[in-house]
Amino acid sequence: MFKTVEWKSTGVVMIDQTLLPEREVYRTYRDYRGVAGAIKEMVVRGAPAIGVAAAMGIAIGAVKVKAKDMKGFKREFDKIAKLLASTRPTAVNLFWAIERMRRVAAENEGLGVERLKKRLVAEAKEIHRDDIEINRRIGRHGGTLLKKNSTVLTHCNAGALATAGYGTALGVIRGAIEAGKKVRVFADETRPFLQGARLTAWELKKDNIDVTLITDNMAGYIMKKGLIDAVVVGADRIAANGDVANKIGTYTVALLAREHGIPFYVAAPLSTIDLKIKHGDNIPIEERDSAEVTHLKGRRIAPKGIAVRNPAFDVTPNRLVTGIITEKGVVRRPYNKGLKALFSK
Amino acid sequence: MFKTVEWKSTGVVMIDQTLLPEREVYRTYRDYRGVAGAIKEMVVRGAPAIGVAAAMGIAIGAVKVKAKDMKGFKREFDKIAKLLASTRPTAVNLFWAIERMRRVAAENEGLGVERLKKRLVAEAKEIHRDDIEINRRIGRHGGTLLKKNSTVLTHCNAGALATAGYGTALGVIRGAIEAGKKVRVFADETRPFLQGARLTAWELKKDNIDVTLITDNMAGYIMKKGLIDAVVVGADRIAANGDVANKIGTYTVALLAREHGIPFYVAAPLSTIDLKIKHGDNIPIEERDSAEVTHLKGRRIAPKGIAVRNPAFDVTPNRLVTGIITEKGVVRRPYNKGLKALFSK
Repeated sequence: MFKTVEWKSTGVVMIDQTLLPEREVYRTYRDYRGVAGAIKEMVVRGAPAIGVAAAMGIAIGAVKVKAKDMKGFKREFDKIAKLLASTRPTAVNLFWAIERMRRVAAENEGLGVERLKKRLVAEAKEIHRDDIEINRRIGRHGGTLLKKNSTVLTHCNAGALATAGYGTALGVIRGAIEAGKKVRVFADETRPFLQGARLTAWELKKDNIDVTLITDNMAGYIMKKGLIDAVVVGADRIAANGDVANKIGTYTVALLAREHGIPFYVAAPLSTIDLKIKHGDNIPIEERDSAEVTHLKGRRIAPKGIAVRNPAFDVTPNRLVTGIITEKGVVRRPYNKGLKALFSK
Repeated sequence: MFKTVEWKSTGVVMIDQTLLPEREVYRTYRDYRGVAGAIKEMVVRGAPAIGVAAAMGIAIGAVKVKAKDMKGFKREFDKIAKLLASTRPTAVNLFWAIERMRRVAAENEGLGVERLKKRLVAEAKEIHRDDIEINRRIGRHGGTLLKKNSTVLTHCNAGALATAGYGTALGVIRGAIEAGKKVRVFADETRPFLQGARLTAWELKKDNIDVTLITDNMAGYIMKKGLIDAVVVGADRIAANGDVANKIGTYTVALLAREHGIPFYVAAPLSTIDLKIKHGDNIPIEERDSAEVTHLKGRRIAPKGIAVRNPAFDVTPNRLVTGIITEKGVVRRPYNKGLKALFSK
């Protein structure tokens, strides 16, 4: 099995998701600037995976700090954390992971520079290990929601490639299959970056899970034909009221699901829930380069000089969300209460 | 200005829509088999343009029939009409145009073979001329529906490239602009064939009409932001009850429009209305080659051997359609009555 992000003696190693499915290439990043670039250019993507990568970026940055005194170290550490925080704005897991690393640094100044570096590396590795375990729990909780014989539509890639491993939305599918259920998947190709066609199709096929690829605009047709039993997607940030920011197009899929009486589930770890954001309108939405829309694999598909919009995410209002599947169980309406309760359990 | 389909002394000339927007190449078809192939491979596409091309295909086929007697001519003519009818199943304009040519042939047997051939060529040219005039009328009627300052979302290409010229949905936009209104357009790229990115963006830009390209899954985001005042699309076949078969994804756009309180208009000539089909479920939906989904410009974007669905059209139920804009005016609910009345005017 492939590894999405990994801490190795040589550096932070990531599978290059821009080259899949044609080529399975692993890249090694030996400094934090390289990791920041990899997040920005989507060599690694998916909210939980970005969190893990950022933690490892901070760790490798910390290890390489030359200052011997704590004051000098802290100055450098701040710079590292700031650069990683500037890579992408929407997925809150990025900020959650950076905050966790910051806290460890702040609480362990007494260790001295060299031992603190080791502590930060250990923390990044723990975030990685935790994420896989969290996904497995999400999978177990979510798996119970699917019928014995189910066809699930998913959008984008919330799989092993979007996390440290196993996946959130695809973790739910894997959890159901491990529980003995038969699950068939329809994957939206997810323009412009084609995470569905390139990544979800690839990792499900590798796992011998029955997957059919469609373009984003076919989901309505497929649902109307009665072919879909449930929708399961991931999330990049969930507001306190249960509004869900996720890959562009998710909102449309949720509307279609409601129209056809199909349950719409969001699978995400607690680190994706941002109680400080009251509702989805306040979630910052990243607008990416227009070339992602006008070009495909370096080839132009639109006229030169054409105006383009390229919002990378949209917000699905809580009223369209049937349930939010977390490692602590499934939360249902009213989300304000249910999501808050998760953090006091 | 470019010509979509044209009758020339050398043959039937078409702009190759598979090569746009990169290259503006005109192809000349000297026999009906070539024209049939061009329709099938989408060198020419768009319901009205397919109708015109089919009529010209029949005309060029008829001209080249070697039989000198009417019996022999009719046998060949049948073969020609049948091949053209087998090219694509959904757009009813194809069958409408073939039927019109058949009727002319049947009613003019008395002319003898050589004069009948000339009569058929004249008929094909008339279908071409009529189509442009019809589109201009659609544009005038539809233009009145748009506000003075309007942003219109369109899906696929129902423009000059989809017709003999001017366009149906884009004809409405052109009609509004000619009436002095300011119209801005958002164009869905329209996967898998990218008619929006490649064709609509190209022809609107050529006309200096303000156009912004988005991927199909961004329409919900753009509507939610309040950026769209009206949706105008074309149609491949309209059932007697007002259900509309159009390019895959249209159904989703219509649902999104209703959710956001945006009027959803369909612009189409009477030749797209099929009163013999009671409701949309009975419209045959073409499923095209999976390579259209897995490859882009010859480059693979999905794993090898992946299962794919590729329905080329979907059906928008009449309840989501605000109005159907025809050359005889705008029809509103109840469509059964209104559409039928068009044919007795």
